[in-house]
Amino acid sequence: MKEKVILAYSGGLDTTAIIPWLKENFDYDVVCCCIDCGQGEELDGLEERAISCGAAKLYIEDVIDEFCDEYVVPCVQANAIYENKYLLGTSMARPVIAKRLVEIARKEGATAICHGATGKGNDQIRFELGIKALAPDLKIIAAWRNDAWTMNSREEEIEYCKAHGIDLPFSADTSYSRDRNLWHISHEGLELEDPACEPDFDHLLVLGTTPEKAPEEGEYVTMTFEAGVPKSVNGKEMKVSDIIRTLNELGGKHGIGIVDIVENRVVGMKSRGVYETPGGTILMEAHQQLEELILDRDTYTMKKVMGNKLADIVYEGKWFTPLREATQAFIESTQKYVTGEVKFKLYKGNIIKAGETSPYTLYNESIASFTTGDLYDHHDAEGFINLFGLSSKVRAMKMQEVEKKQK
Amino acid sequence: MKEKVILAYSGGLDTTAIIPWLKENFDYDVVCCCIDCGQGEELDGLEERAISCGAAKLYIEDVIDEFCDEYVVPCVQANAIYENKYLLGTSMARPVIAKRLVEIARKEGATAICHGATGKGNDQIRFELGIKALAPDLKIIAAWRNDAWTMNSREEEIEYCKAHGIDLPFSADTSYSRDRNLWHISHEGLELEDPACEPDFDHLLVLGTTPEKAPEEGEYVTMTFEAGVPKSVNGKEMKVSDIIRTLNELGGKHGIGIVDIVENRVVGMKSRGVYETPGGTILMEAHQQLEELILDRDTYTMKKVMGNKLADIVYEGKWFTPLREATQAFIESTQKYVTGEVKFKLYKGNIIKAGETSPYTLYNESIASFTTGDLYDHHDAEGFINLFGLSSKVRAMKMQEVEKKQK
Amino acid sequence: MKEKVILAYSGGLDTTAIIPWLKENFDYDVVCCCIDCGQGEELDGLEERAISCGAAKLYIEDVIDEFCDEYVVPCVQANAIYENKYLLGTSMARPVIAKRLVEIARKEGATAICHGATGKGNDQIRFELGIKALAPDLKIIAAWRNDAWTMNSREEEIEYCKAHGIDLPFSADTSYSRDRNLWHISHEGLELEDPACEPDFDHLLVLGTTPEKAPEEGEYVTMTFEAGVPKSVNGKEMKVSDIIRTLNELGGKHGIGIVDIVENRVVGMKSRGVYETPGGTILMEAHQQLEELILDRDTYTMKKVMGNKLADIVYEGKWFTPLREATQAFIESTQKYVTGEVKFKLYKGNIIKAGETSPYTLYNESIASFTTGDLYDHHDAEGFINLFGLSSKVRAMKMQEVEKKQK
Amino acid sequence: MKEKVILAYSGGLDTTAIIPWLKENFDYDVVCCCIDCGQGEELDGLEERAISCGAAKLYIEDVIDEFCDEYVVPCVQANAIYENKYLLGTSMARPVIAKRLVEIARKEGATAICHGATGKGNDQIRFELGIKALAPDLKIIAAWRNDAWTMNSREEEIEYCKAHGIDLPFSADTSYSRDRNLWHISHEGLELEDPACEPDFDHLLVLGTTPEKAPEEGEYVTMTFEAGVPKSVNGKEMKVSDIIRTLNELGGKHGIGIVDIVENRVVGMKSRGVYETPGGTILMEAHQQLEELILDRDTYTMKKVMGNKLADIVYEGKWFTPLREATQAFIESTQKYVTGEVKFKLYKGNIIKAGETSPYTLYNESIASFTTGDLYDHHDAEGFINLFGLSSKVRAMKMQEVEKKQK
Repeated sequence: MKEKVILAYSGGLDTTAIIPWLKENFDYDVVCCCIDCGQGEELDGLEERAISCGAAKLYIEDVIDEFCDEYVVPCVQANAIYENKYLLGTSMARPVIAKRLVEIARKEGATAICHGATGKGNDQIRFELGIKALAPDLKIIAAWRNDAWTMNSREEEIEYCKAHGIDLPFSADTSYSRDRNLWHISHEGLELEDPACEPDFDHLLVLGTTPEKAPEEGEYVTMTFEAGVPKSVNGKEMKVSDIIRTLNELGGKHGIGIVDIVENRVVGMKSRGVYETPGGTILMEAHQQLEELILDRDTYTMKKVMGNKLADIVYEGKWFTPLREATQAFIESTQKYVTGEVKFKLYKGNIIKAGETSPYTLYNESIASFTTGDLYDHHDAEGFINLFGLSSKVRAMKMQEVEKKQK
Repeated sequence: MKEKVILAYSGGLDTTAIIPWLKENFDYDVVCCCIDCGQGEELDGLEERAISCGAAKLYIEDVIDEFCDEYVVPCVQANAIYENKYLLGTSMARPVIAKRLVEIARKEGATAICHGATGKGNDQIRFELGIKALAPDLKIIAAWRNDAWTMNSREEEIEYCKAHGIDLPFSADTSYSRDRNLWHISHEGLELEDPACEPDFDHLLVLGTTPEKAPEEGEYVTMTFEAGVPKSVNGKEMKVSDIIRTLNELGGKHGIGIVDIVENRVVGMKSRGVYETPGGTILMEAHQQLEELILDRDTYTMKKVMGNKLADIVYEGKWFTPLREATQAFIESTQKYVTGEVKFKLYKGNIIKAGETSPYTLYNESIASFTTGDLYDHHDAEGFINLFGLSSKVRAMKMQEVEKKQK
Repeated sequence: MKEKVILAYSGGLDTTAIIPWLKENFDYDVVCCCIDCGQGEELDGLEERAISCGAAKLYIEDVIDEFCDEYVVPCVQANAIYENKYLLGTSMARPVIAKRLVEIARKEGATAICHGATGKGNDQIRFELGIKALAPDLKIIAAWRNDAWTMNSREEEIEYCKAHGIDLPFSADTSYSRDRNLWHISHEGLELEDPACEPDFDHLLVLGTTPEKAPEEGEYVTMTFEAGVPKSVNGKEMKVSDIIRTLNELGGKHGIGIVDIVENRVVGMKSRGVYETPGGTILMEAHQQLEELILDRDTYTMKKVMGNKLADIVYEGKWFTPLREATQAFIESTQKYVTGEVKFKLYKGNIIKAGETSPYTLYNESIASFTTGDLYDHHDAEGFINLFGLSSKVRAMKMQEVEKKQK
Repeated sequence: MKEKVILAYSGGLDTTAIIPWLKENFDYDVVCCCIDCGQGEELDGLEERAISCGAAKLYIEDVIDEFCDEYVVPCVQANAIYENKYLLGTSMARPVIAKRLVEIARKEGATAICHGATGKGNDQIRFELGIKALAPDLKIIAAWRNDAWTMNSREEEIEYCKAHGIDLPFSADTSYSRDRNLWHISHEGLELEDPACEPDFDHLLVLGTTPEKAPEEGEYVTMTFEAGVPKSVNGKEMKVSDIIRTLNELGGKHGIGIVDIVENRVVGMKSRGVYETPGGTILMEAHQQLEELILDRDTYTMKKVMGNKLADIVYEGKWFTPLREATQAFIESTQKYVTGEVKFKLYKGNIIKAGETSPYTLYNESIASFTTGDLYDHHDAEGFINLFGLSSKVRAMKMQEVEKKQK
């Protein structure tokens, strides 16, 4: 009996060409897995197609809810944003895919996992670090980095497929290089390869429209959270994935969440991409809005450090590590009381706050207002400032003393 | 001869009432100082007014350029934003004011400085820490916290003034509590005291308009920077203060930079405010856009930490401290090559990137593109990932070994 | 019926004098509480004494195990050391005392808590922040800061006691100001007030001896930990408090854990103290020694940040805060596999490592040794270095290019 | 004319064997460079030896002072210690060597640089990142990672040398693997490869003795610093390198600075080593002792973060990077007033503080002492604590309110 390899399979040209290539070069039985994180692709007929291309089997795995609940929510709670702009759409999906690939590999008794990520990107790292951490004994085949891989263009891939009896209507045209899931879509390539070029948004956008083309009329939205987990939109309770779907529609319509960035990849190069994260942008902003009421200053400050740390960890593909677990433990601990309702208006790319309430709000109107209440005594400020500035004053006196001596 | 007190004076009701109060309660000669950071107030006739109210003298000091060059620019370079939203408009102005007050105190041989900041706010801290650090020997009088201060409303202040022969046309009406300088204007009070309330923007805004009322047509802007310092707007070289003036006009027109926030004050309470920072928001975004091309990943990550630190330091009024100096030294070191041009479009509250170039860009198209060039070998990724993930793999193997033993 | 006040009571002169003072100035029933964190003081006869001095009641509460398990262990796990030297002995004890005081206040229906900490120290902060966080409705009386408190020396306190019918054999001599519990003893005052002075160790030390006077012969010790919790010493399982007792004896004998430090207090001043932490120093070193085997590099680095953070939090008296909880959650998450045995030799102030083992060690001899094994391929290093240094190389090339252009 | 390669040459077997190997496999002229960082090796006759082995030329470069002034001092100022124990001896030396190799390569018009660091260690990274950053156009040859390198033991190297006409009295015995410079010596291998083994210190130590064998009598030492730079020992002004030499002798004699550590290498593995850093340990401790008097609390806290960061940067071989420069700029800014004298006693592995003074000390006896002075008012503490704990109190009240509602 042949050994089995698990192939991360999308049904597109790249991963299709890998099927015969794996059989030819490694003599494996190829088990294809299409892990659905909400790519929005047509999955009907995918099994037939995979089998017809030589796969021994096709798994179609819907991991959308796992993705949203276990990977997205912790990052929202952390306000994890990479290099101030990137909401980690692809980064959060890779580990859930790696995990499912490993689960299927175990079930099938496979000895290897194959992916089709490029040798220049972050995704190879994320896949492989995930697999190494979950199944260190499995062999990893990175098709595009493999010396036996000789195809360098879509034309050559189509040619190769044909030569191996696969004649599917793939187009040789290259568009943007994209990655999509329920949380976002990323775009790279074409005019984006020159950072001096303005993106051709009309050509590029998939999940929504530009602020310019968004409706003239703004739209109010309310959301609730419980312990940092989103619970409802506009009064309707939903599971997290449905909240994201709803917000995607709202955000896409109003031109929310389009980001154009030159980012530092883990492999040491800069790359330029455009991300659409319509719902995610709203969700993160709404969550942060609510936290304003609840987190004290010390916690806020340190949570910012930890959120940035989590963003780096996730971006680097280090999901299945002790550091991610510990960082998430910190974040989760801060979310206990992040419960309440926020309201905002979506208008042409803007999320405009329109009021927020929480049973646990630390905002205290009697303290904050200009008239004095019981809880706050102006005299306290005097003592506070005197001690808060004591070392500055002592230092200044010492400097005066030294100067005097030097004269 | 009487001792002199330096009074931070604006010409408004609050600081006017302090003149007779100081004379009555402390028997000082009162030297008024109006430090102009770009409040946009009418300064004509201010001297007469101050003298007529009992001041011995009035200084009007234009510190706008010092404010912009020495206080604003370092914060822009640091991307220093407090609690993710507040661009530190008031925080950056307080130390330059404190410094000038001390300079005048020295010139006048004064023994005290008096300010009219409230006992609940951050500004008392910023003024007093500044004075303590620059002139530890000077007495500080915080009028509103002083036991001899008995006025609790505008009406009482007007009454007090009248009783002391000052009959000026002050209105007893209270509007928002505001602080303005060239960089921003802040609004507090009225409906803002309830975080559940949407701000009445039409009533509130001073420096610009809402996105809704902004022009239907976007407007492209280009800016250049040299070593992290803004140099020109739309091809025209200007000093920093004029750049901010120009961007304020552009930003105000297009509804840029309106922020509604519940923030954590240093004194331990939460407060709610709306900030308008039209030009500042553009300037910070443009600077950050340029940095994308130039900063390597390690520097980017640590600079974020240091920028957040600087924001905290400045917010806390700790400008004249060794830590601010050291933090700024770090930031300045990163700016050596932040030189280049950025282009963006302003449209209804949005700053939409439209291309960026720099002689020092680390973006390398031949590395970043999908086709392989000389500089980057796909095989390197294999080695990189193997070592980058080595400890994860070793750990996973160890866990498998432990599990096996336990069976 | 009179209102009750809970008094943190030690039986010493200071807190004894507070009993009549509270009755005289506030007309309270005074409930004394002696919270035993391992001060090593004589508690026999304390009740009689308190009653005879006018107390309505005396609680003697042994919180040693709670102190060790809930306060000390998390700090050991965090390797929480303040300003590189101070092992937080007093800082960790204050919150457990505050908590017990509040519990008794609730049980007794008291309306106030009184403590005798000085107005210059950290302990007033730690007590009061604890009480505010656990019982914000209770009044706090800081006797020594109170305007009704007029005694300024031991003599005056003795006088005051006598005048109120308390004639106990207190000595008017002042020695070092000390705070002791199971974890440590601190010494301040006398010659220590001048940082230029060498401490008079022979006069000063309580828990142990100097390295000079320690035995000529070293002594080997083994310890085990399970999930970061110390479990045994020299093969004998014990509860944590007994482990600390055992290590105190060993450490004291061998001159371990004497620290002489000028530290920055929270109130903005520097103070100078000597700490003896014989067992604690060993425990922390042993724990850190074991962690070397288990923590990966990323976790190690971030844990250092978090450990320093926890040290600051605890030092500042912010134990009962969301930030302490979140920080501790991070630390706990890293301890899951900190299990194993460490061996070391105590010799004249030195803790000399002598071998360590763990079932979860990430040290892999086949990888670490000079001969190549399966797991590590030298070629991988090439790829790793190329990408690890890619941005440096790209930057250097860009600089060469710019320089060439400038010529 | 042949192309030239610069070889980092020590005169030992490993780098000697590389000479014929480079000529045979690459047809280079081999320019040997022995960069002296204070290895303490015999350099007489080295030129003859190199030439006789086939080198075209030998450079002997004394970089000891550059090493001490430009590399060691900044790390001392930062208190840069890797993983709490390692004083970065080898890490700091690699970049100064890389820099000199590049300088010679430029002078000689060489096209490549070759080093003999192993494929498992950190040093290959440090050499190569340095070269990439300083001379991205130069080829790097890592002999031991090269496929043409076939020797796997000292015997095979000796054999290879002989076959190429080199017959030198190299011993085939392997001892510890060591790296030495003026700052330290590191030991790896033999019994150290098992972390459970106690090091055989008698066999291993080179720079000093164990605490057990150190003199029975302690020895007092004084040191002065100016702006963070060490200036004198025991009253005698010396350049930094001589200070280190002097302290090495003192420290070695008294058993100071022996560290046994399992550390995390950059390449993802753990390794175990023993370091001797007798003088460095004293120097760092003395510097830190002085800083206690001078740094305010905020600066101290952040400097700790930055010092740890610098340690990581240096350990990772990222000396010639913008981040190292910026981090060092931070540190330098904190050193302006680190001027003064420290005294300590060396005794059997202990550095026992014995007094410290500075013209810039922030320690103020009148503030710190128990009797109240002018500068500090006990009442201020009340206000300070009330605001310092305000958010805790507000939070606790809110929780009480929520609980009450829930009943």
